[in-house]
Amino acid sequence: MSEGTTKETIRLEAFSDAVFAIAITILALELRLPDGDGDVRLRDELLDLWPAYVAYLLSFSTILIMWLNHHALLLWVRRAEGKLLVANGVLLMLVAAVPFPTTLVSHHLGDSGGRLALAAFCGLFAAITLAFAWVWATVVRHRRDIAPALPDREVRATAWHLSISFAGYLAALGLALVNALAGLGLALGMAAFWLWAAYRRHRAALET
Amino acid sequence: MSEGTTKETIRLEAFSDAVFAIAITILALELRLPDGDGDVRLRDELLDLWPAYVAYLLSFSTILIMWLNHHALLLWVRRAEGKLLVANGVLLMLVAAVPFPTTLVSHHLGDSGGRLALAAFCGLFAAITLAFAWVWATVVRHRRDIAPALPDREVRATAWHLSISFAGYLAALGLALVNALAGLGLALGMAAFWLWAAYRRHRAALET
Amino acid sequence: MSEGTTKETIRLEAFSDAVFAIAITILALELRLPDGDGDVRLRDELLDLWPAYVAYLLSFSTILIMWLNHHALLLWVRRAEGKLLVANGVLLMLVAAVPFPTTLVSHHLGDSGGRLALAAFCGLFAAITLAFAWVWATVVRHRRDIAPALPDREVRATAWHLSISFAGYLAALGLALVNALAGLGLALGMAAFWLWAAYRRHRAALET
Amino acid sequence: MSEGTTKETIRLEAFSDAVFAIAITILALELRLPDGDGDVRLRDELLDLWPAYVAYLLSFSTILIMWLNHHALLLWVRRAEGKLLVANGVLLMLVAAVPFPTTLVSHHLGDSGGRLALAAFCGLFAAITLAFAWVWATVVRHRRDIAPALPDREVRATAWHLSISFAGYLAALGLALVNALAGLGLALGMAAFWLWAAYRRHRAALET
Repeated sequence: MSEGTTKETIRLEAFSDAVFAIAITILALELRLPDGDGDVRLRDELLDLWPAYVAYLLSFSTILIMWLNHHALLLWVRRAEGKLLVANGVLLMLVAAVPFPTTLVSHHLGDSGGRLALAAFCGLFAAITLAFAWVWATVVRHRRDIAPALPDREVRATAWHLSISFAGYLAALGLALVNALAGLGLALGMAAFWLWAAYRRHRAALET
Repeated sequence: MSEGTTKETIRLEAFSDAVFAIAITILALELRLPDGDGDVRLRDELLDLWPAYVAYLLSFSTILIMWLNHHALLLWVRRAEGKLLVANGVLLMLVAAVPFPTTLVSHHLGDSGGRLALAAFCGLFAAITLAFAWVWATVVRHRRDIAPALPDREVRATAWHLSISFAGYLAALGLALVNALAGLGLALGMAAFWLWAAYRRHRAALET
Repeated sequence: MSEGTTKETIRLEAFSDAVFAIAITILALELRLPDGDGDVRLRDELLDLWPAYVAYLLSFSTILIMWLNHHALLLWVRRAEGKLLVANGVLLMLVAAVPFPTTLVSHHLGDSGGRLALAAFCGLFAAITLAFAWVWATVVRHRRDIAPALPDREVRATAWHLSISFAGYLAALGLALVNALAGLGLALGMAAFWLWAAYRRHRAALET
Repeated sequence: MSEGTTKETIRLEAFSDAVFAIAITILALELRLPDGDGDVRLRDELLDLWPAYVAYLLSFSTILIMWLNHHALLLWVRRAEGKLLVANGVLLMLVAAVPFPTTLVSHHLGDSGGRLALAAFCGLFAAITLAFAWVWATVVRHRRDIAPALPDREVRATAWHLSISFAGYLAALGLALVNALAGLGLALGMAAFWLWAAYRRHRAALET
């Protein structure tokens, strides 16, 4: 039933894209001024909101880069399959939860809760890395059926990236508990690492 | 007008997917700390939020599994049709309402309103089961036109699943009114049942 | 550039579907209890929320039925075109605004503001009817280029439906200013009328 | 891997469309009455909300017109590519942030914060213009690979439009700091300019 299998791969991608797109777009709902007396010193209120801008930038770029990786990964998949849908579902559940620690960071980066807020952020991305690894392991285990063109080189490279990502986010979590800004720095570094990985993976998929 | 019929099936799926994806993603908007004095004891606030985590997990996984079933069901449908669009619309109206009892559960699981909140949750999923049965009955009644490849075996199996689901959610509703956590346990059990059904149905659709 | 034209018709539909789907799904965000002392009499709070349930039912079903009509209309369109994109954009701007009068109805149906809230709701749907007429007029005017299969019969029938809809929503607006529930009744009647029209139009498109 | 490249262009468009559609639709969430004593003088409250209507109209139409231009631009692109995905991601991050200055305008247009609110709005659209220019420059630089049909005429015309847009929004920003309504007028003028550009660009893409 080749028509059906194509159709469901497309639906899997479309559904995943929708969840990524919605999660990323509702981040902006946190960009809001605190309620209060509206007509005095808007400028000061806007400047005081800097943790929200940092949190928006961090979460938006990280989710977007995750999407690029997800996108590049699914370029290999020719057929969705029950176990893949379940693993992908858990990944989406965690991605959809990103606005929560983003809000924590945007409210607490400037105060004593900042360390815990950043740690929660990094912990969620460590968990997202694990879910990504589950999706990837499912693709690799069934590669003969669902991703016949996937080369060994990609399998090894992705295993490395996921290991580095998990270790990096755990380290960022630990750092954040000591110093919020240091944790933030490493979290931004991890986003840059994933961007490089997405770029590399993307090129590999197209060159095959 | 075969091109048109294909186009409309795709639009039906895309629209349904969008509603499922949005409903599932805005669940995370409920993961938020109560407003209050922001810089004291973030850790305690995060721990006190456990009913919201439970509600998010329950609703996200249940909607996702419903989507997997919807997805597997529509694999058989080759042509959308007026009555199917209406039945599917009622199903979507109920799915889109899931964030409401989820919020109730997340606010009241720890207090005396928990039983009613869980009962509302289970009642909504009993209603969703009925709407699903309506969609399914519409497909079966017009199967010669819109789902020619649908085998009798699937028709019987799905009728069984829907009956078990309706009975299960009614039982969970009753249990919840007596004991919120018992109702929650059965609701999680029903999600596991639907996951198994989705998995089975999916495989059946691909093997045909 | 036939590939491009197909691609853009699909993007027009997909974008419109997304706006309809989001507008319809965020309606549920209004299904929420007023903040307050959380652990007393959840049952009474849920019962007091009846105007919100009515508003949700009314708006969800009306937007869904509008989508069915939009869907049926675009079955005829083989090529999107600049003017059509603009008219459709105005239609989407009004559809996306539906949550606003829905909230008004859900907060005020039980009090003295109910008449004005319902009137605003009906006024918005009168405006949506005009925007629909603009989209339709654009399709008809360029039918040789963009909807070659569109029969005269459909052009006449749709002109009738749009006239009845505009008159009906204006009448509902007037009625609502006198009696909120009477306006609500006529607004539900108009939704039923559009459902019948969608059903008819859909069948006509498939039978051609 | 020509199948893959087509698939990823479609995913790029679909993801972008989703972000545009969500950003545009959640604008309506700002159309809300201030909390307060609900049953007195709804009419006055609705009239006092005029800055919110203006802000909705301005932001909705501007995002929609940006989408039309984005849509017309991507008609030329036959292959997504890593650098294009990154530039497009930055564009989407800025588009998704539009609800923030929209809220500022809708809360402050009538008071002394109006000038700063409008300036923030115009500043964001100046930044969006730069991101658009980055996307466009990426397409042009790799045109042999990803947009082989793109004519020189379009490259030159778009460079002009982007320059005018950047200058126009900077001027509107300056004007807004002096007089909020003058800034608003020029921002509306820029939307009209982009609409004309979209219309022109669209026609060019279809006539090639």
